[in-house]
Amino acid sequence: MKNPFKPIIGITMGDASGIGPEIIVKTLSLSETYDICRPLIIGDAKIVTRSTRFAETALKVHAVDRVDDAVFEVGVLDVYDLKNLDPSKIEVGKVCSASGKAAVEFVEKAIELALNQEIHAITTAPLNKEAINRAGYHYQGHTEILADQTQTKQYAMMLAAGSLRVIHVTTHVALREACEAIDRERVLNTILLGHDTLTTMGVPNPRIAVSGLNPHAGESGLFGREEIDHIGPAVHEAVEQGLNVQGPLPPDTVFLRAWKKEFDIVVAMYHDQGHIPLKLLGFEKGVNVTLGLPIIRTSVDHGTAFDIAGRGIANPMSMREAIKMAVDFARHKFGNR
Amino acid sequence: MKNPFKPIIGITMGDASGIGPEIIVKTLSLSETYDICRPLIIGDAKIVTRSTRFAETALKVHAVDRVDDAVFEVGVLDVYDLKNLDPSKIEVGKVCSASGKAAVEFVEKAIELALNQEIHAITTAPLNKEAINRAGYHYQGHTEILADQTQTKQYAMMLAAGSLRVIHVTTHVALREACEAIDRERVLNTILLGHDTLTTMGVPNPRIAVSGLNPHAGESGLFGREEIDHIGPAVHEAVEQGLNVQGPLPPDTVFLRAWKKEFDIVVAMYHDQGHIPLKLLGFEKGVNVTLGLPIIRTSVDHGTAFDIAGRGIANPMSMREAIKMAVDFARHKFGNR
Repeated sequence: MKNPFKPIIGITMGDASGIGPEIIVKTLSLSETYDICRPLIIGDAKIVTRSTRFAETALKVHAVDRVDDAVFEVGVLDVYDLKNLDPSKIEVGKVCSASGKAAVEFVEKAIELALNQEIHAITTAPLNKEAINRAGYHYQGHTEILADQTQTKQYAMMLAAGSLRVIHVTTHVALREACEAIDRERVLNTILLGHDTLTTMGVPNPRIAVSGLNPHAGESGLFGREEIDHIGPAVHEAVEQGLNVQGPLPPDTVFLRAWKKEFDIVVAMYHDQGHIPLKLLGFEKGVNVTLGLPIIRTSVDHGTAFDIAGRGIANPMSMREAIKMAVDFARHKFGNR
Repeated sequence: MKNPFKPIIGITMGDASGIGPEIIVKTLSLSETYDICRPLIIGDAKIVTRSTRFAETALKVHAVDRVDDAVFEVGVLDVYDLKNLDPSKIEVGKVCSASGKAAVEFVEKAIELALNQEIHAITTAPLNKEAINRAGYHYQGHTEILADQTQTKQYAMMLAAGSLRVIHVTTHVALREACEAIDRERVLNTILLGHDTLTTMGVPNPRIAVSGLNPHAGESGLFGREEIDHIGPAVHEAVEQGLNVQGPLPPDTVFLRAWKKEFDIVVAMYHDQGHIPLKLLGFEKGVNVTLGLPIIRTSVDHGTAFDIAGRGIANPMSMREAIKMAVDFARHKFGNR
């Protein structure tokens, strides 16, 4: 592909006390990142400067107040600088309300820039829930901030690790509540969102597997009726609409089948149903995508890892994969193929 | 180890219409099987003879009516012959009540022989639930037959695949019921059973990980209270009793940690929590062990696979591993180390 479109990816710095700044710096020290996109850190320039030392790189930090001032050159870290942190007061590896507050502000700014189409997509480094709560924000995490600030009601999380892609019908709720929440409409909407997403990513007629909720997908009602009452009818409706969908399938084999490329995506019923196989197969390269937003957002699939922050050993693999996926989406939305 | 004790392993033939007989024949065609044990098929000799053709082996079938008459020689398939099937009436790959009835009779005979200590352990080939139900038996599967016939109330399933061993607090019930069934006593009993089992297998002071039920192990009550009300107290009690136990741990990372050998066993709360990682990591070499019985029983971790039965392509890996594990248990129970 000659001169592929290089989208501007706004990379939020995440919690300044965690590994976010370090994995960003490591990822932007690679020329291959600049081969596919124009990366712009949305964060605090002084913290980024400190992280170049942790990451042992000799990159130049270039603070800007406008996207237009970024230079997007290998060797230069363009930072859309919110100047909202003082490194002397931010201890690495500790929960801190100042880091929490700043992390939310980075995301809010990124959303604003993405809605204005000054940037083409957002990739987020991890924030720390306790830190943002201490700062007075009552969000569960990024997804809720994004949904709130973009007034999105219908959204879902897709995770990807290699050939395994999973979209969840429910996520951060108790398992009992997840069981309660499974209904035909919600399952159908998730199937449709998965279909639309993969189509947007350039997968034609995506092969969608829908997992059951219960062991052996309920075994004809022997171990629960959600498959008969809700999941099966949702699959039937999706098939009626012309989608390439199978299910409900036994949860303990569907992920292996998808990993072996029998399906393009699995619709999982609850958080751990999807997260257990993703973490096992994805190791450190999992990517999280929020679907249903008016903007593109991908994320690393790990936390702030305070225990290893500041030591230069954090693995940037997930950040690299998250940026790549943001680029794929942005090219389909904005640019050439 | 010189002249290690070779236990007599009674291998039940399973459903005659499925892949059971074939994987047994393939496993017993290997001299390494005879290096570790004295294998005795408990089944129907005519069906075994037919399977030697599917498996394309030239083994001699030796039907016996008493364990003492078995010769246990490489090249000879000793069959404790129940003469309860007619191959001309048993179609391969089809559910059939005659196969179901015979499969239960093999298991019943194996239990009788094991209780009499004529054999040292049982390894079971798969049966088909629909077939046994058609034959008038209302068992869920092997485990219920074994518990019933040995009057065992307190039992549990352990599955193993490579370095990952998992014991389940609940198994074949709807997910909602599994949530209901999680209580301190049941979790504690499962921890203790896992501990005793590994100790019996020769793992000193086994490192036990207890998974949570909810996403992120409930995140301090934010996503469910089972960790606080039941699982945590059970772990606490086990630690008080001197066991090497950690938990409740986030379900989406605990299996990866165990796979990396940080733990010897994981206590899983429900069927798919344990089965999803086992099937992913175990591929075709998973083994199932029923704990708490007065006899030793291991099993393959797959079904009758009617779709590939009779074609000579069934993979005997799981059967080989199941026999190996039965040998390990039997050596600790009956013989030298």
